[in-house]
Amino acid sequence: MLDQSTICAISTSPGMGAIAVIRLSGGEAISIADKIFRSPKKEKLLANQKANTLHFGQIVFDKEVVDEVVIALFRAPHSFSGEDIVEISCHGSVYIQQKILEILIENGARLARPGEFTQRAFLNGKMDLSQAEAVADVIASSSAAAHKLALNQMRGGFSKEIGELRDQLLHFTAMVELELDFAEEDVEFADRTELQNLTERIEKLLRKLKDSFQLGNAIKNGIPVAIVGETNVGKSTLLNALLNEDRAIVSEIHGTTRDVIEDVVNIHGTAFRFFDTAGIRETVDHIESLGIERTYSKLDQATVVLLVVDTENPYPIVQERIRKIRKRITSAQTLIIVANKIDTGKRDTIQNLEMLDLADNEKMVFIAAKQKENLDELIDYMIHSVNIEAVEEQDIIVTNARHYEILKNAHEAILRVVNGLDSGITGDFLAQDIRECLHYLGEITGEISTDEVLGHIFKNFCIGK
Amino acid sequence: MLDQSTICAISTSPGMGAIAVIRLSGGEAISIADKIFRSPKKEKLLANQKANTLHFGQIVFDKEVVDEVVIALFRAPHSFSGEDIVEISCHGSVYIQQKILEILIENGARLARPGEFTQRAFLNGKMDLSQAEAVADVIASSSAAAHKLALNQMRGGFSKEIGELRDQLLHFTAMVELELDFAEEDVEFADRTELQNLTERIEKLLRKLKDSFQLGNAIKNGIPVAIVGETNVGKSTLLNALLNEDRAIVSEIHGTTRDVIEDVVNIHGTAFRFFDTAGIRETVDHIESLGIERTYSKLDQATVVLLVVDTENPYPIVQERIRKIRKRITSAQTLIIVANKIDTGKRDTIQNLEMLDLADNEKMVFIAAKQKENLDELIDYMIHSVNIEAVEEQDIIVTNARHYEILKNAHEAILRVVNGLDSGITGDFLAQDIRECLHYLGEITGEISTDEVLGHIFKNFCIGK
Repeated sequence: MLDQSTICAISTSPGMGAIAVIRLSGGEAISIADKIFRSPKKEKLLANQKANTLHFGQIVFDKEVVDEVVIALFRAPHSFSGEDIVEISCHGSVYIQQKILEILIENGARLARPGEFTQRAFLNGKMDLSQAEAVADVIASSSAAAHKLALNQMRGGFSKEIGELRDQLLHFTAMVELELDFAEEDVEFADRTELQNLTERIEKLLRKLKDSFQLGNAIKNGIPVAIVGETNVGKSTLLNALLNEDRAIVSEIHGTTRDVIEDVVNIHGTAFRFFDTAGIRETVDHIESLGIERTYSKLDQATVVLLVVDTENPYPIVQERIRKIRKRITSAQTLIIVANKIDTGKRDTIQNLEMLDLADNEKMVFIAAKQKENLDELIDYMIHSVNIEAVEEQDIIVTNARHYEILKNAHEAILRVVNGLDSGITGDFLAQDIRECLHYLGEITGEISTDEVLGHIFKNFCIGK
Repeated sequence: MLDQSTICAISTSPGMGAIAVIRLSGGEAISIADKIFRSPKKEKLLANQKANTLHFGQIVFDKEVVDEVVIALFRAPHSFSGEDIVEISCHGSVYIQQKILEILIENGARLARPGEFTQRAFLNGKMDLSQAEAVADVIASSSAAAHKLALNQMRGGFSKEIGELRDQLLHFTAMVELELDFAEEDVEFADRTELQNLTERIEKLLRKLKDSFQLGNAIKNGIPVAIVGETNVGKSTLLNALLNEDRAIVSEIHGTTRDVIEDVVNIHGTAFRFFDTAGIRETVDHIESLGIERTYSKLDQATVVLLVVDTENPYPIVQERIRKIRKRITSAQTLIIVANKIDTGKRDTIQNLEMLDLADNEKMVFIAAKQKENLDELIDYMIHSVNIEAVEEQDIIVTNARHYEILKNAHEAILRVVNGLDSGITGDFLAQDIRECLHYLGEITGEISTDEVLGHIFKNFCIGK
């Protein structure tokens, strides 16, 4: 399964920097490096140097000095990948980085595939699969909460939780299978009440993990926010004000269709994903031009809906708008009614809005987007719309869509066990469902994995990791 | 002059990568690192570790693990800056990089200014000033030739040349000052012919260095190319074809005025700087709308002028255009007449162009820009318009504008010596001009430098170097 070639890649961020690091991993890493490295101390070979040491010298190719570098030497199995690793710290020009990479390939290394160093770490038993997956999340995390979850998973927190679940299930299987051995004698080694309690505990745990994904996904990818409202109520002004609130705009995510652009912005450590913002930016008539269906599909994807209403309008118009949107909001979503233009709004409209009864999942905030008035209150509501604080209390939160899918399957299997116990099905059916559940949990940690699954996981890594 | 604080910066390219390196330099570098670093081996302190070693562990702050890292330990004076250096290799998320930087500052380091690590290397005598300047050039170099020049300068090639010049001048001064001591006796220790030969040799050397700047600058910043021609002759098509020829477009340099955009493209290892390309792209009527003055000012800045003419036009029109441009071209420039649209051009026009007499600095090429026909010939002419091969033969080429300014002054001073010897001025005047020349050369290597000069040099470095 593990190919033996020596791989290389630029491991630092692409582009120009003061320094760049090129990583080489595999059985030939040190001997390849020795072919191109020249120490000021003549005759010094990296092959003769101790692990975990640094060496200054030159990269020489075709008798020309390519750069002055520092080489970091790691030896198997005490390295990230579990293989010999040579890291070359060179001057960070794009030219030099490419040149050194070319020279390494010329000397027998091959370019690493995305995530291949981490994949080797997994295959060499340095970490389990869920830890390997977390490496990519640690690198991609752009908020304090996302970072914390990813780091916890990388350090094995999630694996421990899954391991404990597996232990409980194995205990359960042991009891059930003991019964199967003595089936003819019709004894019950496992006390049915005890079994019931155990499966219910496992079911609860799996459900908790599964359900944590909504929060985990919001933390990892940003809380999805939709800004809706009629033409000219100030949606675009509000969006710009929010995006400017904190300069750390993380990225523009280009969706599957070209015209869907998402702005992710990190506000006070929480990431928000404003979607379909291109539309808001492009034209104030956007909602109208796209038609009502598109507006509603936006609503469905959002965890937080900002309904912007214009207090300059007569109250009945505003009221009608709120009524229509309310019909589309589920209790799992948060609706924040943003009453805009309070500096120039109608007194009657504002007073009526103030008296409006709000449901548990509704908030109202009065702002002047143009003057950036009361934005803090709005942001506060947005931040508390998802219970980010839960991260502090609860240890394990699922952030990975693959894990979520597996947990759903595992949960279904364990539910069958619970129901089976209720209806008194035979032990061999119980055992089958439990084995299925065990299988799923093994997929998370990688005890059960296929090349296809691994390929799918690591292809989303960056090259060099 | 050297401030004693411990400085820190992200040294790898900004943005997300597999790993990032944060560098810490100064007397407190190791003790600050020890405050936040926790090794899996309890009680292990970096302070007790040997130089040039690597250490795996965690960055811990406020009792929370921030990341798992590898620390590289260098000890004064055997480090890049000549001080103790700690390099932290962390996961390359932007969040982690910023967080670790914050923690270092929290623990007593301060953010490094641009180039401050290199400035300290200079102040600690690890390199002279021209070498320090070359560090930035090495990082910025985007072509093989520029990289070679910068690396040569960083490794001391230029300093050696300047050092030899200084030695010759000191020998000269010694002779002249000996004469001054015995002035009343009216002896000439220094044979006047010998002196004349020596100064002429020095003058020639300084002139050669000074004159190499045009080539050096072209190599470093790209050969400046102007594309001119009337409306609809195919300038924009040609530009796009050339920019697409090699996908390695290095950058868009925004000039002092907003509407001047320069495209730098690396073609077969040589960088070309197409300027005012925004104009060509924006509108085909550009030349006309800007007026003839602007066109001519573009011509003056170019080393290579591509005059695009349309062979679909009658020859007299084409001829008149060539005549006008020729009047503005100096012998130091290369004019390449690009006869475009040969697939649909008038036979008469093409035949007449083929018979046109060309000056030494002129070339003619027949192309079809749209079909990308004969572009290779054009590129070949462009590459040979500046004698890049000279880099192979000649060791030292001045690429730095500061050095060029100083060399101009030094050359003027030595010319006064040459002329002084001719007209028989007294030894003390000679000595003064020589001392001036020596002073200038000292400015290049940094033996003579002011805070202002240093500040100016290092402010253009990237942070982290």
